[in-house]
Amino acid sequence: MIVEMQAGARQDQVDAVVARARSLSCDVQLNVGTNKVVVAILGPHTGQINTDLFAVLPAVASVTRIMRPFKLASREFRQDATTVRIGDLVIGGKAVVIMAGPCSIESHEQLLATAKHVRACGATILRGGAFKPRTSPFSFQGLGVDGIEVASQVREELGIPIVSEITEPHHLEDVADRVDLLQIGARNMQNYALLRAVGESKRPCILKRGLASTVTEWLQAADYILSAGNPNVILCERGIRTYETSTRFTLDISSVAVVKRDTHLPVIVDPSHAAGHFQLVPTLARAAVAAGADGLLIEVHPDPINALSDGLQSLTFSDFASLMQELKAIAGAIGREI
Amino acid sequence: MIVEMQAGARQDQVDAVVARARSLSCDVQLNVGTNKVVVAILGPHTGQINTDLFAVLPAVASVTRIMRPFKLASREFRQDATTVRIGDLVIGGKAVVIMAGPCSIESHEQLLATAKHVRACGATILRGGAFKPRTSPFSFQGLGVDGIEVASQVREELGIPIVSEITEPHHLEDVADRVDLLQIGARNMQNYALLRAVGESKRPCILKRGLASTVTEWLQAADYILSAGNPNVILCERGIRTYETSTRFTLDISSVAVVKRDTHLPVIVDPSHAAGHFQLVPTLARAAVAAGADGLLIEVHPDPINALSDGLQSLTFSDFASLMQELKAIAGAIGREI
Amino acid sequence: MIVEMQAGARQDQVDAVVARARSLSCDVQLNVGTNKVVVAILGPHTGQINTDLFAVLPAVASVTRIMRPFKLASREFRQDATTVRIGDLVIGGKAVVIMAGPCSIESHEQLLATAKHVRACGATILRGGAFKPRTSPFSFQGLGVDGIEVASQVREELGIPIVSEITEPHHLEDVADRVDLLQIGARNMQNYALLRAVGESKRPCILKRGLASTVTEWLQAADYILSAGNPNVILCERGIRTYETSTRFTLDISSVAVVKRDTHLPVIVDPSHAAGHFQLVPTLARAAVAAGADGLLIEVHPDPINALSDGLQSLTFSDFASLMQELKAIAGAIGREI
Amino acid sequence: MIVEMQAGARQDQVDAVVARARSLSCDVQLNVGTNKVVVAILGPHTGQINTDLFAVLPAVASVTRIMRPFKLASREFRQDATTVRIGDLVIGGKAVVIMAGPCSIESHEQLLATAKHVRACGATILRGGAFKPRTSPFSFQGLGVDGIEVASQVREELGIPIVSEITEPHHLEDVADRVDLLQIGARNMQNYALLRAVGESKRPCILKRGLASTVTEWLQAADYILSAGNPNVILCERGIRTYETSTRFTLDISSVAVVKRDTHLPVIVDPSHAAGHFQLVPTLARAAVAAGADGLLIEVHPDPINALSDGLQSLTFSDFASLMQELKAIAGAIGREI
Repeated sequence: MIVEMQAGARQDQVDAVVARARSLSCDVQLNVGTNKVVVAILGPHTGQINTDLFAVLPAVASVTRIMRPFKLASREFRQDATTVRIGDLVIGGKAVVIMAGPCSIESHEQLLATAKHVRACGATILRGGAFKPRTSPFSFQGLGVDGIEVASQVREELGIPIVSEITEPHHLEDVADRVDLLQIGARNMQNYALLRAVGESKRPCILKRGLASTVTEWLQAADYILSAGNPNVILCERGIRTYETSTRFTLDISSVAVVKRDTHLPVIVDPSHAAGHFQLVPTLARAAVAAGADGLLIEVHPDPINALSDGLQSLTFSDFASLMQELKAIAGAIGREI
Repeated sequence: MIVEMQAGARQDQVDAVVARARSLSCDVQLNVGTNKVVVAILGPHTGQINTDLFAVLPAVASVTRIMRPFKLASREFRQDATTVRIGDLVIGGKAVVIMAGPCSIESHEQLLATAKHVRACGATILRGGAFKPRTSPFSFQGLGVDGIEVASQVREELGIPIVSEITEPHHLEDVADRVDLLQIGARNMQNYALLRAVGESKRPCILKRGLASTVTEWLQAADYILSAGNPNVILCERGIRTYETSTRFTLDISSVAVVKRDTHLPVIVDPSHAAGHFQLVPTLARAAVAAGADGLLIEVHPDPINALSDGLQSLTFSDFASLMQELKAIAGAIGREI
Repeated sequence: MIVEMQAGARQDQVDAVVARARSLSCDVQLNVGTNKVVVAILGPHTGQINTDLFAVLPAVASVTRIMRPFKLASREFRQDATTVRIGDLVIGGKAVVIMAGPCSIESHEQLLATAKHVRACGATILRGGAFKPRTSPFSFQGLGVDGIEVASQVREELGIPIVSEITEPHHLEDVADRVDLLQIGARNMQNYALLRAVGESKRPCILKRGLASTVTEWLQAADYILSAGNPNVILCERGIRTYETSTRFTLDISSVAVVKRDTHLPVIVDPSHAAGHFQLVPTLARAAVAAGADGLLIEVHPDPINALSDGLQSLTFSDFASLMQELKAIAGAIGREI
Repeated sequence: MIVEMQAGARQDQVDAVVARARSLSCDVQLNVGTNKVVVAILGPHTGQINTDLFAVLPAVASVTRIMRPFKLASREFRQDATTVRIGDLVIGGKAVVIMAGPCSIESHEQLLATAKHVRACGATILRGGAFKPRTSPFSFQGLGVDGIEVASQVREELGIPIVSEITEPHHLEDVADRVDLLQIGARNMQNYALLRAVGESKRPCILKRGLASTVTEWLQAADYILSAGNPNVILCERGIRTYETSTRFTLDISSVAVVKRDTHLPVIVDPSHAAGHFQLVPTLARAAVAAGADGLLIEVHPDPINALSDGLQSLTFSDFASLMQELKAIAGAIGREI
């Protein structure tokens, strides 16, 4: 951390900065320039020290962090790439893992038909939502535990792993043993009680990026799960909020590269929520595979026109089949496989 | 809701739009232009109908909502301004209510001293946090229930009402009877389980705007609380995330006017979290009072340099005293009082 | 355009809306609901009518545009895809056209060496800047006319077409005959004098998206050039400003799909300015080709460490060679070629 | 500037950083920690050195600027507040200067009537646009030189100073002697040819903040004008682009405080363009005065319903008169005057 003093700062004000640094077990180096004093605060834990602790001291002009504030998720903490395993499946390996299915689980028939189709096309994990966080209290809120029960039946019938979202810690009781991969949604990325509960469960989980979170905050949220003892964290980019309105969110495709550089965790992309419209989903899916995503989370519905939620961004069976052909070709072109 | 068909849409495609509208109990008027057909969908509940239900139909070019998607919070639902009462205090009346105190409750001594000072300066509600949602798992997380216990003692000693944040539904057990005003923080604005629990509690509450939420989403979140039977909702603008980094968040001062126009709920402003730095807090506080805010939520600490959280944005006792003089003058100039 | 009247609007207020619509040569259809009146304003030119003309009338609650405000750039105006030709090269056809070279032209030697290398790797247009718009007046501002002279020599020696930016209308005198493709930079997307001048020149041009422009505003800027009689417009996505700081700008990869859907113009992507760092450029370039971009604009420098501008985002010769191999494979996978 | 080396950086890589710093006439101090080396680069000109010059060197992990990149506009360069004088008027002094008038000059009658009214209410500068930058080529583009001629007549008749926008350097010929205060609009904040021309003219000018510019970029743009020898620069906050759509732009009220802290230049606020709707203008105007703005730029029109541009955000004569009463009271409450 670098503390720049104001021009004309007194010696006792510099001393106060040094004293605070030492009280936090940090080393200090002073740079006395002609105009100003700059204090370098060094040590392995400076990334976790709040810059405000120095910024609040008298005659401090600015404080700049040079170590990133996330720790367990960082490449510096762990150099080898993490892979998450679900049975035989490996997320973060050579294969690009396709997770597909309806936004909401509506019935056994709907989920089973979708599962058979997406598996036949090459998807290896079935998605389906039971607990739906909705912007309006007057919207369909999902089937809840009944939806999880449906998912569990289809999982047993087809032997396909399931990913589903939970929104409250106590959902774990109903979900943990009937679902293979837990999803923490964008709105809950900073729901710390939920992060801790999923951390303690040790279950494989997807952590979606908050819709206005920086990459740094996203990785700090991952630190909550990792620090509770759960190494099985998969990051998911799903679009961020910007001023542009032609898509529901702006897919931050660069974040795939940033996350690959700065962390050891696998990262997948959700083109459906970013696009908000089925016509735009294939473009984003193709871009995500080319960018190096370790997987995709795609909404597919047997009858989008009559879906109870997110029909507009759901692919039909035939559109999904076509897209999978394209994705396989792109994966092959960059030395991966679907 | 207005559905614009694509140029060349077939009659059966227009009929499908009409049929869906009727199935949702709406009236329909067709506008057949030379180039395209436009379908107006009318009825008192169209604000709560998801536009996607029409956008997903074949040959639909666009769907535009003309009624706002929030309902119970709207001026159309209730024309008279809502006031929230806490004992003798009225929020949403002529007085601009100042709520001040430390970010985190650290000790009985700290809270009591602050309470005495801010009350002497004209604040009428004491703020103090016990459950702190923090971006990093390695930061101070608040005193929890012990902090609430401290707040409860100070409340009894001084007879000053207390506002404090809760972050999980089960906190209500510990907090509901020991605090006068519940705060739902920005990170939890779309934590629907929490919104419902606070709604069912019927307790006066502050709903902070999510840090990347639109005004519309904020009012939909208010609808969650209102629809659970709790009319005592106070909105709080606290800055939104933008590209600008000279302040922690960008205070959306216009939202005070927008909210006053579009809803019947009182609205207050938190200049401390928006600014992120004590030097900028007075400017934002003055602007908020002049803009017509019904109250302010200000962080004050006896010793900001040694505060356990948010010291940088906390005012000292003397800075707070000066600010209150300025705010009283501005309130007077616009026909209000502090 | 749809005008929603306030509940309780009087007949004369509705009449004023109708009268204004008729004065603008539009058709009108009234929808009289139980609560409110909605006026649909129809006609082929409603996209170019400012919504404020209605919003300003008494008792108008809202005005919603259903036709897009851009016209000549729209798919509705021209259904077939536009291609731009530069000699034998076609932009907007099957080939993905790679334009590569240094940010700034620094010397004949530098530009010639770069041109030979990028051409050997498969690039077909040489980029090089002479007039550099820089954020600070104290930064290197480019070689100006001397730089254009260097470009012109290299163009003659190698027979490779050149793209270069102009920032003022009078630059056309020096540039028009010595450069094959004019570039209008992001900061000048709404410099209307420049747009008109380039429009009147009829020369092929690249219109970069403004760093905080919506897709709609970008296409309205294209309308300025098109309406001056120049059909040779190539759009270029180069990243937009958001709150995220891990990259210089956030590449809006979705805009490629949106632009392909809504306009007939070719669209290319500049991964260098979006990324701001050479390590991230290849990821964005791969994503752009997979997304369907018609070309790329990439910064390459023989010695990025000593470049006079944008060294950090410039690829070395060897990194560019590797990237081109990857891009050729991806282009092949989606049925295109480089 | 602080250069952090990657863990494990070699000595020759550190040496390269030191050598580059020395080549730029900077002092260097090395901080050799247990994990990494940090190089502090010191000297009075480091604010104007591009960080990329170091970031591009091998084994550099990050580069952090601690001096701001703007120079002539900074408080460090000049400690005393700058005031801009127009005849007897002082901008940046005790008085809050109100500049009011129509968006576009439409006729002599319109401008004269408005001038008389706003002056009677307390405004001391008349605004009126002749060269209008419009998003669409199909919109009204202003009266051009004829509009300036009208402004010049009204100025002579009433003796009121005029502010008007110019969009191209050659406009100066027609405008410089007929207008008292030049305005550089938000879209042209980084039109460097225009900035230089206004700088060389030495005329008092308003520099509006770009609609997606940071405060830092705004002050760098001011440096362009100042470095051309023109000290008479007035900054103008007019709202920035964010994701929120309930107002046309989001007024960044905090920027008034930031600019007051970081520069010596006067700052005014344009509530009309930020709000985009006349109903919201008074709230923003009140907030701006309370925040400490040195002036306001407000659109007023004798007949907003029939204005040729921006009617929706223009105040009527009677609304403006009421607002001025409120503003005078607020100015008085904070020790200023209107």
